[in-house]
Amino acid sequence: MTTTRIYNVNLMTMDSSLPSGANGILCDSELWIYENDIVAVGPAADWQQRPHRSIDAKNQWCLPGFIDCHTHLIYAGSRADEFSQRLDGVPYATIAGAGGGILNSVRQTRAAEASDLLQQSMRRAQRLIDEGVTTLEVKSGYGLDQHTEVKMLNVARALARHLPVQVIRTYLGAHAVPAEYRDNAQAYIDFVCTRMIPLVAELQLAQAVDVFCETVGFTLDQTRQVFAAAKNHGLPVKVHAEQLTNTHSARLAAEYQALSADHLEYLSADDVPALADSGCVAVLLPGAFYYLKEQQLPPIAALRQYKVPMAVATDCNPGTSPVSSLLTCANMACVLFGLTPEEALVGITRHAASALGLTNKGMLKAGMAADCCLWNVDTPTALIYEINGYRPTARWIGGKYVG
Amino acid sequence: MTTTRIYNVNLMTMDSSLPSGANGILCDSELWIYENDIVAVGPAADWQQRPHRSIDAKNQWCLPGFIDCHTHLIYAGSRADEFSQRLDGVPYATIAGAGGGILNSVRQTRAAEASDLLQQSMRRAQRLIDEGVTTLEVKSGYGLDQHTEVKMLNVARALARHLPVQVIRTYLGAHAVPAEYRDNAQAYIDFVCTRMIPLVAELQLAQAVDVFCETVGFTLDQTRQVFAAAKNHGLPVKVHAEQLTNTHSARLAAEYQALSADHLEYLSADDVPALADSGCVAVLLPGAFYYLKEQQLPPIAALRQYKVPMAVATDCNPGTSPVSSLLTCANMACVLFGLTPEEALVGITRHAASALGLTNKGMLKAGMAADCCLWNVDTPTALIYEINGYRPTARWIGGKYVG
Ligand SMILES: [Zn+2]
Ligand SMILES: [Zn+2]
Repeated sequence: MTTTRIYNVNLMTMDSSLPSGANGILCDSELWIYENDIVAVGPAADWQQRPHRSIDAKNQWCLPGFIDCHTHLIYAGSRADEFSQRLDGVPYATIAGAGGGILNSVRQTRAAEASDLLQQSMRRAQRLIDEGVTTLEVKSGYGLDQHTEVKMLNVARALARHLPVQVIRTYLGAHAVPAEYRDNAQAYIDFVCTRMIPLVAELQLAQAVDVFCETVGFTLDQTRQVFAAAKNHGLPVKVHAEQLTNTHSARLAAEYQALSADHLEYLSADDVPALADSGCVAVLLPGAFYYLKEQQLPPIAALRQYKVPMAVATDCNPGTSPVSSLLTCANMACVLFGLTPEEALVGITRHAASALGLTNKGMLKAGMAADCCLWNVDTPTALIYEINGYRPTARWIGGKYVG
Repeated sequence: MTTTRIYNVNLMTMDSSLPSGANGILCDSELWIYENDIVAVGPAADWQQRPHRSIDAKNQWCLPGFIDCHTHLIYAGSRADEFSQRLDGVPYATIAGAGGGILNSVRQTRAAEASDLLQQSMRRAQRLIDEGVTTLEVKSGYGLDQHTEVKMLNVARALARHLPVQVIRTYLGAHAVPAEYRDNAQAYIDFVCTRMIPLVAELQLAQAVDVFCETVGFTLDQTRQVFAAAKNHGLPVKVHAEQLTNTHSARLAAEYQALSADHLEYLSADDVPALADSGCVAVLLPGAFYYLKEQQLPPIAALRQYKVPMAVATDCNPGTSPVSSLLTCANMACVLFGLTPEEALVGITRHAASALGLTNKGMLKAGMAADCCLWNVDTPTALIYEINGYRPTARWIGGKYVG
């Protein structure tokens, strides 16, 4: 029965219902935590109990714990060797043809012991946590067969037992066609829909289902088939959409009330109203844009105009976005995509929570989980402005102080 | 009298005289440290003394400590507020006219107590050190008056007393025209040459002199005047060259045997042979390129063709490159400028040492200072490939183990 009172604190609550604008700033304020939750927030916040612990924040800023809502951080091995080839201009198709690309990571992830996979992935998760991430999503998709996909999702669960972070798991069987189904993508999708999705649902291996819908991934029809199977088994969907070409997968995402549509560089402005109506979150992944030297920008102006919530995530993966820094990706969202620092901060808190279907995270507000960090900054936008500038001075996850 | 033997170690020595190529790789090797220096390197390295301490590196990689050879990390205050303005497209001239830009940092740095300036700067230096930096350069230039320039250079000296890092100090009085000399840049340059440079030399406040030669900085003639004054007082020179326009300052740098010419996006390929002949190091600063959304690339092909040594640095500063991560800048040098990861690694070790005139750093070789780090990676290129991926597992500076 612990009650913690943090006082002399500036809060960026992300509560847009407050009068201070979209980021909900409350200066010289207080925040009260009881057990796992925030119970009171405000300039002279009060609660029925006396605090068990009182913390003078000395005018530091408190923000919700950051949420990385799109990662592939569980994988084995490295693809650093492909980096040199890509810098030399070798096309991805050539690298993939020579056993590189996603199937390279699939081979190494299948071969890895679960304990080794956990060790390798913990390093990446730790880097994110060091910077104030308290919740992260992890996708499967480097196994593709039943055994390895289950192994990956179990490792994702184990991450949260070893590190101070909550992990949300997504089944991404439809990431690539495995070698054993080469030239028969449809048979693989049938396996995903009739065998894997029922298993994932029954054993609660994941909280959502994702598809890589792309000319080099799966077709719009195959994506629809996966969405339908997921819905039939009560699992919400997400989609890797419009990254390299426009396939109108975002419109399909809207039709299936997807939690999020991610990437979106080639999203057609015509499809934005449908996205807005469905409540789908647009997840921006500037790390992949940066590494791939992409030129096509996501339609930020249209997304703003129709008030589509924009989240930002790392896409942390071994090939196209080997980045273990959510704040660096938030910086890239500003520098490369033109988001404001304030938008980027909402994008790694409130909207990132929405992209994961989490209704009790991403804001400092009574009733929310007490996931928050203290930062010794003059203004929270400094966290976005500087690359590798800051570390939290204190962190709480689910009300528990984790240093 | 401590002798340390590190065994079971893969060395990336950066010694190009070894047969294994420019990065001088020695696998399954040993490295011996006696007092402050490396005394033996090789597969079965041996030395006349028995080791006082033996360390099994378990097949990890050992690299020279990284050297950040161009920073402005000592300053007070933040310019995060200008970031939003610049993202909104407000021109730098407008921001500077309203009291922003360099003169904003000058105002705050003049007003700061030395102890406060040290505290604020230590945070940035610590971030660099966390990633394996063992030597960093710091420039003055946010004081411009005598009192504050001396204060900055003294704070730079103090950094090395508080943190496990060697600090090289550069006097950059010719960074901007201070308000009190507005419309009289020439009088300010005369003050720099006749008053400050003699003082810097006499009191050994700095090891080199730098100039911001640019249409928005100082002219080629003024740069020549500063170079001549520095040479007269026995101080080597460096120059912020060809960043925004081509002024042929690189050619002037060659004429004065400058240690380095830095930035170089607008360097003319015609001036590259002169640079090569003079032994001047080309210091690439992709952080500023990234933040300024510059389109003009430095002439990497010509620099390679004439074998100009290329270093990479952060340019860590409050306005155009607020980056406290040398490895992220090395990554940008690859992704944005097309360097190979191997070139980037030489660029933050051996060539960075040359850019500072340091002949005993940047390589793992008998006679060099024992500045080195262990890394748990399959290949050192992974350090460049992944953003925020790795931390050293052990570090030595001048032979001293610092954790
Ligand atoms: Zn992804
Ligand atoms: Zn500079």
